[in-house]
Amino acid sequence: MITGKNYIGKTLSNGGKTTYKTINPAAGSENEITFFEATQAEVDQAVEKAASAFEIYKKKSGKEKAEFLEAIVAELEANAEALKEIYRLESGLPEGRSNGEFARTTGQLRAFATMLKEGSWVEAIINNPEGKPDLRRMQVPFGPVAVFGASNFPFAFSTAGGDTASALASGSPVVVKSHPMHAGTGELVSKAIIDAAKKTGMPDGVFSNLNSKGIEVGEWLVKHPKIKAVGFTGSFKAGTALSKLGANRDEPIPVYAEMGSINPVLVLPSALDEKAQFWAEQYAGSITAGAGQFCTNPGLILGLKSQKLDDFMQFLKENIEKVAPSVMLHPNIKKQYDSAKGEMLQQKGYTSVAEYTEEVNGNLGKQQVIKVSGEEFLQNKNFHKEVFGPFSIVVECTDKEQLGKIIKDLEGQLTGTVLNADAQELKEFSESIEALTASVGRLIYNSVPTGVEVCAAMTHGGPFPATSNAKFTSVGLTAVQRWVRPVSYQDWPDALLPDALKNDNPLKIVRELNSERTSASI
Amino acid sequence: MITGKNYIGKTLSNGGKTTYKTINPAAGSENEITFFEATQAEVDQAVEKAASAFEIYKKKSGKEKAEFLEAIVAELEANAEALKEIYRLESGLPEGRSNGEFARTTGQLRAFATMLKEGSWVEAIINNPEGKPDLRRMQVPFGPVAVFGASNFPFAFSTAGGDTASALASGSPVVVKSHPMHAGTGELVSKAIIDAAKKTGMPDGVFSNLNSKGIEVGEWLVKHPKIKAVGFTGSFKAGTALSKLGANRDEPIPVYAEMGSINPVLVLPSALDEKAQFWAEQYAGSITAGAGQFCTNPGLILGLKSQKLDDFMQFLKENIEKVAPSVMLHPNIKKQYDSAKGEMLQQKGYTSVAEYTEEVNGNLGKQQVIKVSGEEFLQNKNFHKEVFGPFSIVVECTDKEQLGKIIKDLEGQLTGTVLNADAQELKEFSESIEALTASVGRLIYNSVPTGVEVCAAMTHGGPFPATSNAKFTSVGLTAVQRWVRPVSYQDWPDALLPDALKNDNPLKIVRELNSERTSASI
Repeated sequence: MITGKNYIGKTLSNGGKTTYKTINPAAGSENEITFFEATQAEVDQAVEKAASAFEIYKKKSGKEKAEFLEAIVAELEANAEALKEIYRLESGLPEGRSNGEFARTTGQLRAFATMLKEGSWVEAIINNPEGKPDLRRMQVPFGPVAVFGASNFPFAFSTAGGDTASALASGSPVVVKSHPMHAGTGELVSKAIIDAAKKTGMPDGVFSNLNSKGIEVGEWLVKHPKIKAVGFTGSFKAGTALSKLGANRDEPIPVYAEMGSINPVLVLPSALDEKAQFWAEQYAGSITAGAGQFCTNPGLILGLKSQKLDDFMQFLKENIEKVAPSVMLHPNIKKQYDSAKGEMLQQKGYTSVAEYTEEVNGNLGKQQVIKVSGEEFLQNKNFHKEVFGPFSIVVECTDKEQLGKIIKDLEGQLTGTVLNADAQELKEFSESIEALTASVGRLIYNSVPTGVEVCAAMTHGGPFPATSNAKFTSVGLTAVQRWVRPVSYQDWPDALLPDALKNDNPLKIVRELNSERTSASI
Repeated sequence: MITGKNYIGKTLSNGGKTTYKTINPAAGSENEITFFEATQAEVDQAVEKAASAFEIYKKKSGKEKAEFLEAIVAELEANAEALKEIYRLESGLPEGRSNGEFARTTGQLRAFATMLKEGSWVEAIINNPEGKPDLRRMQVPFGPVAVFGASNFPFAFSTAGGDTASALASGSPVVVKSHPMHAGTGELVSKAIIDAAKKTGMPDGVFSNLNSKGIEVGEWLVKHPKIKAVGFTGSFKAGTALSKLGANRDEPIPVYAEMGSINPVLVLPSALDEKAQFWAEQYAGSITAGAGQFCTNPGLILGLKSQKLDDFMQFLKENIEKVAPSVMLHPNIKKQYDSAKGEMLQQKGYTSVAEYTEEVNGNLGKQQVIKVSGEEFLQNKNFHKEVFGPFSIVVECTDKEQLGKIIKDLEGQLTGTVLNADAQELKEFSESIEALTASVGRLIYNSVPTGVEVCAAMTHGGPFPATSNAKFTSVGLTAVQRWVRPVSYQDWPDALLPDALKNDNPLKIVRELNSERTSASI
């Protein structure tokens, strides 16, 4: 049952008077439950509880934390149907997506549990050469983490998503600022986490969930002296505001904000020799998937002006116009999409390539693809802006020099993709590919940018303004690195060392011992 | 020969009119050479050259970069006598220190060269399970780095010090803002770097050295859009100002500022059972070493009020008053020391433990140790401030509860030390030791905090305000992590992959391959 209350640790609380309801974006109506916006007192209580919990939780073994994460999975799975139902009701996302994102979320939690049980993630380094001090270093958590739920991933980037899973794995308590568009999903997921915490004996305050429709709760959280780091996925405007808030505190803290990108796709000529139709199908799917509401949505397709590119665009038109528009996450998101698309369509010098023109009712996002010349794109930076939704621009470049210039001119991006069918051609375009490499977090060859694997080798990040901090990823196992700092022990008594650094290596982890990677004891 | 000019890449330049001279702090007189403050145009030129050099330098192999670092060592060693002479002239530091710091500096460069030749520092991770995308990730440099020379380490934390060595190792060009107190040392070291760059075919702009006595050059550097990260060692005031400047740019950049600390030493009772005299000698040396001008100088000694602690203080007095005061780095540093010490001595409730009372001439820093009660220390935060110089406070705590409270109340520190002779006692004081662990970057057992090993397991860093970013170290091999970001390649053609990620592992580095650490090929 959804109560509309905040979880202040294990305690349900509705101390405030400001309330709101979520929207059913498919029906265009309000959902039933009333949510209570957290008060500043409730924010303080949640953070104070998190700070107290930290003293206990940071000492939990990898095995204990893994059991907690696995218990969260068990609770989520036991309530899967109710969770997916409220997810669909609040997001308008279809059943397949609710299943996929649910599996991704439990998969992430399990992956971090596996990482914890293996244990080497703490990056143990030992130097004990003869005649020098014995130095041993490992990563440790540094305090409570605030996580902001993302509108477009109610499961996988919100309450129990990647930020929460990685922070809990690191040993850091989490205070979630729930996303107001899916507050009910957030509460049900929170209940699963709280129940798992109770069942595995985790301290009160290891997790809290705060409802909030305004910006104050988020600001109070980021400014709270006992919050030590922040994870955020959302807009550039909100992400940069929070990052500056974190940087300008008396004690600055890291704010890891993933703020989106237009994800350039470099279509090399050979890619269209045989597979123009294939790539058009793939990209029609990628552009419209989830109503285009992905950070990795391909918003920019770069090619050389040619008959082949014309053919590709024709195929793209045929494929994309067939797609029935999907419900967007919220009337506000649709309003923002229409507004950003409208602004784009007020620019000069473009031609529409494909457009879903039929009348639609309600909250559906109608896809569109336009094309501009390389010259126009270079001159008009408005074409570089992200339109969050099923919208993409094809840029027709005159030659590979112009293509290279355009890529060098791009801002930082989450992904960059190269389509190609000829190894020789890659050398010809090496300057463009190199420029692409310099501005993205992930390079993709002959695929689509949507779809982000959860594994240790993933980077879901990239240079500003794609993120506030290009040194970290928000997806994959190394996301845990955001919440830890190194501590070194010099000549420290073995009995007092953390297990990861003890002589006999009781955790059997891989350590760097005088420059060798080994799981041997000392 | 020292020219007083700036190195804009390989070119000597003196476009400006503002000049200054360095001081011989031992003689209290100006040195001969006139230095030309860099102009904004020269700052721009240096950064533009660095940005151009980056395109070439980032592609140099580990072996090529190692040869560059080793060539710097060779140039430094070929000019060792001249370098040490100007170092002593400008810093007032004695011959032994000039030899030690010179060796430390070349040792650091050699250590990074060794790391580059081995190659595993790029943290290669590969996930290629059946039926999933092939993902490969490694660390890459992200652009020109600005390094601020530190007053107290003209060799090891300045022109060719740890920041420069680690940045060059990462593949990032460096623009140094030379410290005005040792501009001549800075220029001679720069010449060695430039000569090494020429001999090993490194691009013009891989290194520049800018003279500056004011704050403008540093600000222009940090604000320059093509500077992508900053390394700084110095005062809290300057470090936080630069950090905020970096965070509030249109494109925020990381500023790694190491800002000092008071380095608490926890003297457990058993440590004084047999060794009160020994520790007093050790700490008399550590407090006065280098006229106390070390970031890791032990400024705070915490013990339980007792006859043993009284004896320790008596021994400390006897030992420390014997030490002849040393020349401080600069009349300004001495002025700041006297002023900060004076402020401390205006507080109420302390007693002087030891003081060098003889009249001294010139620029000598006279050591002093005072004691306060735990109660006073808790109440008066002025006692928590760093006095940069040979000054230390002993806090007499009433019991272990008060000791724990004091440690929990401390700000972030570079180091925390425990002196002890009885394993059982460590358990009794576990709360204090745990609190110490939470607030420092390096824990030390039965030693002094001065002396910072250069190795992979070192953390010379710590929670704010010790540094601006507790996630990184400025000493040791992992200092390189400050200048890199991860990039992932998805299904990327083997021929196009960086060597570190290629199937046949041509660099023979250790990689994480589907969760196993291995140097095997695929």
